[in-house]
Amino acid sequence: MDRRSFLKASTAGGAAAAASALAAPVYAQGKRTLTMVTTWPRGLAGVWDSVERVANNVTALTDGQITIEAKAAGELVGALEVFDAVTAGQADIYHGADYYFVGQHPGFAYFTAVPFGMTAPEMMTWYYGGEGMKLHHELGEVFGLRSFIAGQTGAQGGGWYRKEVNSADDFKGLKFRMPGLGGQALSKLGASVQNIPGGEIYQALSSGALDATEWIGPWSDEKLGLQEVCDFYYPAGFHEPGAALSVACNLEVFNSLTPAQQKAIEVASGEAHQANYAQFIHNNGPALERLVSGGTQVRTFADDIWNAFGKASVELLNEYTSDDLFKKIHESAQASMKASSGWLNVSDSAYAAQRNRVLASM
Amino acid sequence: MDRRSFLKASTAGGAAAAASALAAPVYAQGKRTLTMVTTWPRGLAGVWDSVERVANNVTALTDGQITIEAKAAGELVGALEVFDAVTAGQADIYHGADYYFVGQHPGFAYFTAVPFGMTAPEMMTWYYGGEGMKLHHELGEVFGLRSFIAGQTGAQGGGWYRKEVNSADDFKGLKFRMPGLGGQALSKLGASVQNIPGGEIYQALSSGALDATEWIGPWSDEKLGLQEVCDFYYPAGFHEPGAALSVACNLEVFNSLTPAQQKAIEVASGEAHQANYAQFIHNNGPALERLVSGGTQVRTFADDIWNAFGKASVELLNEYTSDDLFKKIHESAQASMKASSGWLNVSDSAYAAQRNRVLASM
Repeated sequence: MDRRSFLKASTAGGAAAAASALAAPVYAQGKRTLTMVTTWPRGLAGVWDSVERVANNVTALTDGQITIEAKAAGELVGALEVFDAVTAGQADIYHGADYYFVGQHPGFAYFTAVPFGMTAPEMMTWYYGGEGMKLHHELGEVFGLRSFIAGQTGAQGGGWYRKEVNSADDFKGLKFRMPGLGGQALSKLGASVQNIPGGEIYQALSSGALDATEWIGPWSDEKLGLQEVCDFYYPAGFHEPGAALSVACNLEVFNSLTPAQQKAIEVASGEAHQANYAQFIHNNGPALERLVSGGTQVRTFADDIWNAFGKASVELLNEYTSDDLFKKIHESAQASMKASSGWLNVSDSAYAAQRNRVLASM
Repeated sequence: MDRRSFLKASTAGGAAAAASALAAPVYAQGKRTLTMVTTWPRGLAGVWDSVERVANNVTALTDGQITIEAKAAGELVGALEVFDAVTAGQADIYHGADYYFVGQHPGFAYFTAVPFGMTAPEMMTWYYGGEGMKLHHELGEVFGLRSFIAGQTGAQGGGWYRKEVNSADDFKGLKFRMPGLGGQALSKLGASVQNIPGGEIYQALSSGALDATEWIGPWSDEKLGLQEVCDFYYPAGFHEPGAALSVACNLEVFNSLTPAQQKAIEVASGEAHQANYAQFIHNNGPALERLVSGGTQVRTFADDIWNAFGKASVELLNEYTSDDLFKKIHESAQASMKASSGWLNVSDSAYAAQRNRVLASM
């Protein structure tokens, strides 16, 4: 919240506008370039596609009035510095995973994923059908941001293990790479939780510095080569059951855009959330088949492990409810999840289970 | 395919353009009003919201250049006449469920829902991550349309029954209201399948002219009062596991729009598909709770009934594969569904089942 309130309006065509202090906004004239800093390496499969989809659609929708210049992590600022860069006006927009910013406010976790939280369809329901987007705006405004979810990996995999885990006790002392609230929950099971960048995971597993890791899902994990250093893959995990990616615009910059340009950012972000989810699911199925063909052994966690995951996750989330805004977001999300999961369980899930059973028998 | 090729460009501001015959399109200048005919009664919950969301977002994204004037069924043409109205240029766009137009081509069924077909997340995967949108365009172009999915009801309920059904034999002679390919599949079980409009269902169940019906889902069904005339509700059904709604624009009108205006229709439609799905899920859960509190008894179909549903559905879909374009769409959709359902089954669904189990026990 330590934020300098200046407006950086990069303009082409010579007409600049600083609109923030005016009751009725004076819109920037002509073409503008907005600088988007991101938390991602350039070209990271799926995730970078979401960056490009939002940027390209905003340019197309505004008929070229707005160009979004996307910067990979490290090109202008480091991955975890994008939040401060945008709130300070050093950059105009970030694209990232909001749970990287739980240090700024724990409520940001809910706009990516929390352990034992919502699947992607449940997230859609809360965000677009319920109070999610409104609460995202409320939280963002505290920091001078206008936030939208704009990408979705779907349920992240339970992870890669050098040895099978058969009970909750097997997590005691396990050297596990898992960032964020999921990692905090896992440490309640006695795991030695570490957070190392994606590029270092392979080596850490090879050397025995790690016993297990999560990354994203089969499509992304295969590219890291994790199947070469771990025999066992657990497709279902508890830590990020539907991980959204976000776009957040400096609020003063956002308010200086025309209503049509603002709508372009909003609608392009929403469209990208769905399209990105589709892209991940589309690629994960075939990737898992390739992994299994290559010798990866697929496993599921035993019920007692799920019980321990659930207990730790619920405890952890409750610990943050001393913050009023976190509590408000938490209670809204949990109530929505309870209602949507109740319906999806007896409709979509019940149907899919029967369909899969019947088609497999034919 | 009997289509008159004239362009109806309703314009405000006096500048009209007929661009269709030119190699390089001359874009209509100034503001335009596009007439959207729909297959829906004005204000129909959820469905009409999707109409308004697309229309409002296109106007906002184009900064008021395009106004979409939405007509309810019967205001300009009847519900099932919208396809011919748009292909003939009598109207510019329709919003409807494409499976109403299986008479024009059976392939349209896949762009709403087919029996034993895709759930909404699987549909998203095929449409936005795979070949779905491309095939929708290919099919639409045969009729001079540019088509996009633009709404989604989620999995439609298995229906309302005056008496319980306990085996596939119980469908023999059952007077059941179910339109489309689902109804055709159900008739293979020996049901007496009827198709009557939504407004007449209540009375037909009251009088005994019907034994059972499907409509949409708890939220919509409650508004029809079906709980007053049937004791038993089956939330999971086989006939429309993820029903998309579509927007289709006369292709010559579409080609006369600027690239930014075309993109506005495309992105607004995609965004509405997700938002509409969210709206239905958001409302179905609480509606089912109210129905149960009011005395509705929830049931699930026995495995042998699902077996019969599956056999009939697969047989039916195969009967249409003598048409080459249907076969192409069918094979693409089925392959995508197989891959996406395989992944979702071991990730999202496995997670949700464990989470629901654990949270219920706490």
